[in-house]
Amino acid sequence: MLIVMRADAPEDQIAAVCARIEALGYEARPIPGGQRVAIGLVGNDGAVEPGAFISMPGVKQVIPVSASYKQVSLEWKATPTVVTLPNGARFGGGEVGIIGGPCAVENEDQIMAAAKGVAEAGGVALRGGAYKPRTSPYAFQGLGPDGLRLLAAAGKAYGLATVTEAVDHRSADLVAEHCDVIQLGARSMQNFSLLKYVAPLGKPIVLKRGMAATIKEWLLAAEYLLVGGAKDVILCERGIRSFDPSTRNVLDVAAIQVAKALTHLPVIADPSHGTGLRAMVRPMALAAVAAGSDGLIVEVHPDPSVALSDAQQQLKPAAFAELVKAAGAIVAVTGGRLSTIG
Amino acid sequence: MLIVMRADAPEDQIAAVCARIEALGYEARPIPGGQRVAIGLVGNDGAVEPGAFISMPGVKQVIPVSASYKQVSLEWKATPTVVTLPNGARFGGGEVGIIGGPCAVENEDQIMAAAKGVAEAGGVALRGGAYKPRTSPYAFQGLGPDGLRLLAAAGKAYGLATVTEAVDHRSADLVAEHCDVIQLGARSMQNFSLLKYVAPLGKPIVLKRGMAATIKEWLLAAEYLLVGGAKDVILCERGIRSFDPSTRNVLDVAAIQVAKALTHLPVIADPSHGTGLRAMVRPMALAAVAAGSDGLIVEVHPDPSVALSDAQQQLKPAAFAELVKAAGAIVAVTGGRLSTIG
Amino acid sequence: MLIVMRADAPEDQIAAVCARIEALGYEARPIPGGQRVAIGLVGNDGAVEPGAFISMPGVKQVIPVSASYKQVSLEWKATPTVVTLPNGARFGGGEVGIIGGPCAVENEDQIMAAAKGVAEAGGVALRGGAYKPRTSPYAFQGLGPDGLRLLAAAGKAYGLATVTEAVDHRSADLVAEHCDVIQLGARSMQNFSLLKYVAPLGKPIVLKRGMAATIKEWLLAAEYLLVGGAKDVILCERGIRSFDPSTRNVLDVAAIQVAKALTHLPVIADPSHGTGLRAMVRPMALAAVAAGSDGLIVEVHPDPSVALSDAQQQLKPAAFAELVKAAGAIVAVTGGRLSTIG
Amino acid sequence: MLIVMRADAPEDQIAAVCARIEALGYEARPIPGGQRVAIGLVGNDGAVEPGAFISMPGVKQVIPVSASYKQVSLEWKATPTVVTLPNGARFGGGEVGIIGGPCAVENEDQIMAAAKGVAEAGGVALRGGAYKPRTSPYAFQGLGPDGLRLLAAAGKAYGLATVTEAVDHRSADLVAEHCDVIQLGARSMQNFSLLKYVAPLGKPIVLKRGMAATIKEWLLAAEYLLVGGAKDVILCERGIRSFDPSTRNVLDVAAIQVAKALTHLPVIADPSHGTGLRAMVRPMALAAVAAGSDGLIVEVHPDPSVALSDAQQQLKPAAFAELVKAAGAIVAVTGGRLSTIG
Repeated sequence: MLIVMRADAPEDQIAAVCARIEALGYEARPIPGGQRVAIGLVGNDGAVEPGAFISMPGVKQVIPVSASYKQVSLEWKATPTVVTLPNGARFGGGEVGIIGGPCAVENEDQIMAAAKGVAEAGGVALRGGAYKPRTSPYAFQGLGPDGLRLLAAAGKAYGLATVTEAVDHRSADLVAEHCDVIQLGARSMQNFSLLKYVAPLGKPIVLKRGMAATIKEWLLAAEYLLVGGAKDVILCERGIRSFDPSTRNVLDVAAIQVAKALTHLPVIADPSHGTGLRAMVRPMALAAVAAGSDGLIVEVHPDPSVALSDAQQQLKPAAFAELVKAAGAIVAVTGGRLSTIG
Repeated sequence: MLIVMRADAPEDQIAAVCARIEALGYEARPIPGGQRVAIGLVGNDGAVEPGAFISMPGVKQVIPVSASYKQVSLEWKATPTVVTLPNGARFGGGEVGIIGGPCAVENEDQIMAAAKGVAEAGGVALRGGAYKPRTSPYAFQGLGPDGLRLLAAAGKAYGLATVTEAVDHRSADLVAEHCDVIQLGARSMQNFSLLKYVAPLGKPIVLKRGMAATIKEWLLAAEYLLVGGAKDVILCERGIRSFDPSTRNVLDVAAIQVAKALTHLPVIADPSHGTGLRAMVRPMALAAVAAGSDGLIVEVHPDPSVALSDAQQQLKPAAFAELVKAAGAIVAVTGGRLSTIG
Repeated sequence: MLIVMRADAPEDQIAAVCARIEALGYEARPIPGGQRVAIGLVGNDGAVEPGAFISMPGVKQVIPVSASYKQVSLEWKATPTVVTLPNGARFGGGEVGIIGGPCAVENEDQIMAAAKGVAEAGGVALRGGAYKPRTSPYAFQGLGPDGLRLLAAAGKAYGLATVTEAVDHRSADLVAEHCDVIQLGARSMQNFSLLKYVAPLGKPIVLKRGMAATIKEWLLAAEYLLVGGAKDVILCERGIRSFDPSTRNVLDVAAIQVAKALTHLPVIADPSHGTGLRAMVRPMALAAVAAGSDGLIVEVHPDPSVALSDAQQQLKPAAFAELVKAAGAIVAVTGGRLSTIG
Repeated sequence: MLIVMRADAPEDQIAAVCARIEALGYEARPIPGGQRVAIGLVGNDGAVEPGAFISMPGVKQVIPVSASYKQVSLEWKATPTVVTLPNGARFGGGEVGIIGGPCAVENEDQIMAAAKGVAEAGGVALRGGAYKPRTSPYAFQGLGPDGLRLLAAAGKAYGLATVTEAVDHRSADLVAEHCDVIQLGARSMQNFSLLKYVAPLGKPIVLKRGMAATIKEWLLAAEYLLVGGAKDVILCERGIRSFDPSTRNVLDVAAIQVAKALTHLPVIADPSHGTGLRAMVRPMALAAVAAGSDGLIVEVHPDPSVALSDAQQQLKPAAFAELVKAAGAIVAVTGGRLSTIG
């Protein structure tokens, strides 16, 4: 941590900052500059916060130098983490896994048809929401436990791993009981109570980026999971909020590589929520894998026109199959390969 | 809802949209225009979503006309809701309530000293976090139930109502047991499971705006509370995320009046989190009341320099007292008055 | 245009809105709904603005239905515009043109070496700034006219078209005299005086998207150019501003397809400014072409470590050559081809 | 400037950074830390850019410590600059000047009536656009030189200083010839060619903040003016772009104090463009002065319902008069006073 003093800060203010650093048990190292003095705090283990200094007289700015996350960092573990699901699907280390399925599980026929389409296209896992966080209380909220059971049955029927969202402690227990992967949605990225709760459940976790979360905050949310005992965490970029209403979100494709330059965890992308428009799903899916994404999660519905939610962004199975094929060709250009089952 | 067709949409595409509207049980009303046809959907009760139409051939845009919230709306209830706390403090209808207290409850001496300062300055309620949502897992996470008990005792000692954050179902039960007002933080604004859980607990609720939430989304989150049985909901603007790192957040002062033009619920402001800088708290508190805020929630700590969190934005009691005095003078200019206890 | 009335708007307020519509020479068409009345304004030619109605009593919202741009629209011209430069390079209609070159022209050796690298790699045009818009007045501001002459000579030596930025009327005249393509930078996208000035100069124009411009505003800026007489306009996505300081900008890859769904003009991407980090240039360049970009503009410098500006985001010629090769492979997957010279 | 090395950077990478610092003529000061080494660059005069180091092997981050602006800084001049206009109106140092007038000069009657209203209400200067930057080429573009002459005459008739926007070199010459203050709009804040051109014209300048400009970029734009010879520069906060379509912009009220903590220049606010909604102008004007604004610029039109631009945000003279009165009462609370003419 670096404490930058005002140009006109007198000696005693500089001395007071050094004294507080030492009182906290660290070493103070003043660095006189052309215009001003800066004081290095040496030995910060992540517990010192800028607030401890920013309010002291003469202090202009406090600059954290070490990142506050540790276990997610490439400095902690230099080799990529590869997440392997029970059916053998892999994410990371050059393997690109593709997850497909409807926004929400609606009924048995729908999820079975979706699973069939996903499996035939080459997808390795089946998504489908049973607990839906909806902006409006009047919107369809999901089938709950029944949805989980239908999802699990459909995954089993086609050999697909199952991925679905938990929204609180109770639903997390049920997801862990019935399905293979716990998804934490964008609105839950900083639900720290939930992060702490799911971390030790022993399941792989997909952690979506919050819609206004910085990459650092996203990594710190993942740090909660690793600190709490999770091993297999997959980060998922799903679009950030911008000033332009043209698309539901702006898929921050560069975030995939920015995150991968900082963490050993695999990073995948969600082009469906990332754009909110069916016509944009395929180009953005291809963009994500061209940029080095370790996987995709794509909304697929046997008949999007009757979907109970997100109708406008779900693909038909045939379009999904074409997407997977094109993604495979692009992954080959960048030196990776599509993951398969088993 | 208005479905706008492409300029080149043929008759059969227009007919198909009308047919679907009628199949859903509503009336379709085509409106031929100079360049294109638009089709009105008459009778929407909030259950129809744009996604049902946006993917149909020939559709260019779907425009919701009625807001999807109801009970929070001024069209539902035309007179301002005034929230009265057990100690007689009032928010709304021209009464401006001021809440003060530390970021977090740290120990008995600290919260008692804070309560004394808040009460002497003219504050009506005491805040203090016992469950702290922290970006880093290594940061102080709050005292939990012990914090709630200390807060309740301090409030009782000085006649202040108590306000504190719940972060999950269990902490909500405890907050409801020990304190007067349940606060839902910015990160929980769209924790719909928590919204549904706290709504019927019978307590007043402060609902902070999410850091990237639109005003519409904020009102829809409040709608979850009213639909679930809550009566006394106070909205709290606490700053939105912007591109400028100069301040922690941008306090969206205009949102106070924008929200009040749409809802009967009182709206207050949090200039402490809204700026993140001590020197900005007073000017922004005054700005908020000048703009018509129904209250303020301000961080006050007997000795900010040793605070365990948010050290840089907490006021000393003396500065808080001056703030309350100046706020009172400004409230007088705008025709309101500061609320008092009892 | 649709004027939505408040639910409680009485008849006379509705009548007054209709009367004003007719006074302006248009047809008013009231549409009674379940909750409220909306009034269609039929025949809007783009000259009526929402402001004319939003302040009238009883008006809740004014919704423009027709886009305010015309000539850039796919509804004006349904086939893609292909921009061909004097050396035969093509952008659009399935041809992907790649532009390379340094941030700024620094001296003869530098620009000649860059041109050689760009040409050998398969680039079709040479970029290089002579007038540099710099955030700080103390930063290198470009060589001015000398820079243009050096750029022109280097382009000629290697058969490359030349692209460079104009920042005011005078520099626009000089760019038009010496170079092949006038670039308008992100900060000039809404410099309407400059748009009007360059439109009739008879040169192809690259119009960068402003860093906080909506896609609609970008298209309206292009509309200024077409209305003013320009024929060959290339839109360039170069990153938008976000809340995350991890990257200089967020390259809005989806904007490429969103824009192409609205306009016949070709759209290219700038992964160098779009990320600001050398390691991100290649993945984001590939992402852009995977998403359907009609071209790329990439910063290439013979020795980035001594560059006078943007040192951190310029590629060496060898890295650029590899990028072009990989881009070609991806373009093949999406059904297009790299443009060549002549 | 501080160059932070990766935790695993070997000695020779550290030595290479030090060598480059010294080659550039500065002193290198390595600071070993607990996790990593940081290297201070001592003596930076603003000419060294981060890009010179960020691409070197082993470098993790480059942190500028000194601000790159100088003459605008409170460290350059510790006392507030008070800008005095020819009619004696003052901005800064506790004096709050209020500017009123229409969005655009439309005709003689309109601008005369507006000037009368502004003067009678206690305004000190008259605004009115003659060159209007409009998003659409089909919108009213202003009266040009005729508008300037009408504005000057109206100002003279009522003793008001005149403020109007210049959009290029030629209009800047005309504004300087006819009017008292040159306004640079949000879209021109980084039109560096224009900044350099108007700086030495000898006129006071109002510099609006760009709609996505950081405060640092705003101050650097003002630095261009001071470096170029301008003495009297007034900064104007006019709203920033956000993700919420509820208001045209988010008036960043805190930016007033954030800027004033960094610069000696006066800072005013524009609540008309800052919100874009008439009902929000008064509360946000009062918020701005409560927060310490050195002035206001407010759109006033004798009959907003027929205004050719911005109809929805212009006040009638009577409403403006009430606003000025309330602003005066609030300014008294904060210890300042409204400026008067002469």
